[in-house]
Amino acid sequence: MIILRLKNVKNKDEIITRTNYIIFNPFDYYGKWNSVFNNKNKIEVEIGMGKGDFIIQMAKQNKDVNYVGIEMYDSVIVRAVQKLEEEKLDNLKLIKIDANKIDKIFNKEIDKIYLNFSDPWPKKRHEKRRLTSSFFLKKYDNLFKNEKKIIQKTDNINLFAYSIESLSTYGYTLKNVTLDLYNNMIEGNVASEYERKFHDKNVKICRLEAYKNN
Amino acid sequence: MIILRLKNVKNKDEIITRTNYIIFNPFDYYGKWNSVFNNKNKIEVEIGMGKGDFIIQMAKQNKDVNYVGIEMYDSVIVRAVQKLEEEKLDNLKLIKIDANKIDKIFNKEIDKIYLNFSDPWPKKRHEKRRLTSSFFLKKYDNLFKNEKKIIQKTDNINLFAYSIESLSTYGYTLKNVTLDLYNNMIEGNVASEYERKFHDKNVKICRLEAYKNN
Repeated sequence: MIILRLKNVKNKDEIITRTNYIIFNPFDYYGKWNSVFNNKNKIEVEIGMGKGDFIIQMAKQNKDVNYVGIEMYDSVIVRAVQKLEEEKLDNLKLIKIDANKIDKIFNKEIDKIYLNFSDPWPKKRHEKRRLTSSFFLKKYDNLFKNEKKIIQKTDNINLFAYSIESLSTYGYTLKNVTLDLYNNMIEGNVASEYERKFHDKNVKICRLEAYKNN
Repeated sequence: MIILRLKNVKNKDEIITRTNYIIFNPFDYYGKWNSVFNNKNKIEVEIGMGKGDFIIQMAKQNKDVNYVGIEMYDSVIVRAVQKLEEEKLDNLKLIKIDANKIDKIFNKEIDKIYLNFSDPWPKKRHEKRRLTSSFFLKKYDNLFKNEKKIIQKTDNINLFAYSIESLSTYGYTLKNVTLDLYNNMIEGNVASEYERKFHDKNVKICRLEAYKNN
């Protein structure tokens, strides 16, 4: 894992508090997220969006899809907010929570989950914290409106192998799997700064899609 | 892929014809393979055994399991026979056929299939020839006595990604997946000369186990 160094942003608390992009009472919208966006478009969620590179690009490219980015840490979510203040994006909202509360946020209303370069939590005793552990997969069960869809990208081959096993054992079917994304490119791949840094260092990017009927 | 150069073996035809290790009429034993081994032990099959390194070691280590090695090419099967003539192994037999005839050989009687460093057939138009294509998975359906079990090792990341997708889509559940076997070693791993050469060149070995209920 490359640790991207973050300079501390001045006025961080002020930036975070003042923005309209962060939903501060996400639990209030449980089952009602379409009212947040004021349309019936589908909703896609990125868990652990970091500085928001991926989800901001996605929201700019796909105006007919609503996006929700989840990130726990102020130090990175503030970066996403700074980028967003220069944009006018009606189809993107951010939530500042721990991912393990996600089942209290959405109720049978999302279409897809993106997991990009998630923390691999390599120690066995931290397995439950991996975003593809059965602990999390169980939390995701009730989020989806129709078919469950999880799209994962990572540079960490051990997390990827773990995810394949965990998703498959949980009943997901794996499709469009690659262990070398940049030599098997998918149409419309959106790369974060983090992904580009890895690729520039010749680190292979792994990607999968996992589907499960409700 | 490393192509192992093979010197042509003199008296190849004679060696192959005279050995008791090759079953020349395998179709005759359809549903009756326990009679070949004269016991009721379980039967494990390696498709594309090459020079037989893996399956000979397996047969030596596990006397209570019967092994069948399948290989189409005389130039490599003769190497396996040469090694075997120095051994007395009652629990190993070889078959010289094209793998696509496997469904005419076994009938609800095997326990496990091993696929080690199979030809990746990288061109899309050759997809059917990959030993984990749905074309082959369908052929395997009727081979197994109980639960279907396929164990695959490969150095080819595209074949591995393809296999994950194909097996998963076909209803197999994936377990004990690793994209770096030598840093996630499984107990009792048996390495062929081919596998050792790869590992010595720092090529990562991928491995998976796939299970499907009958």
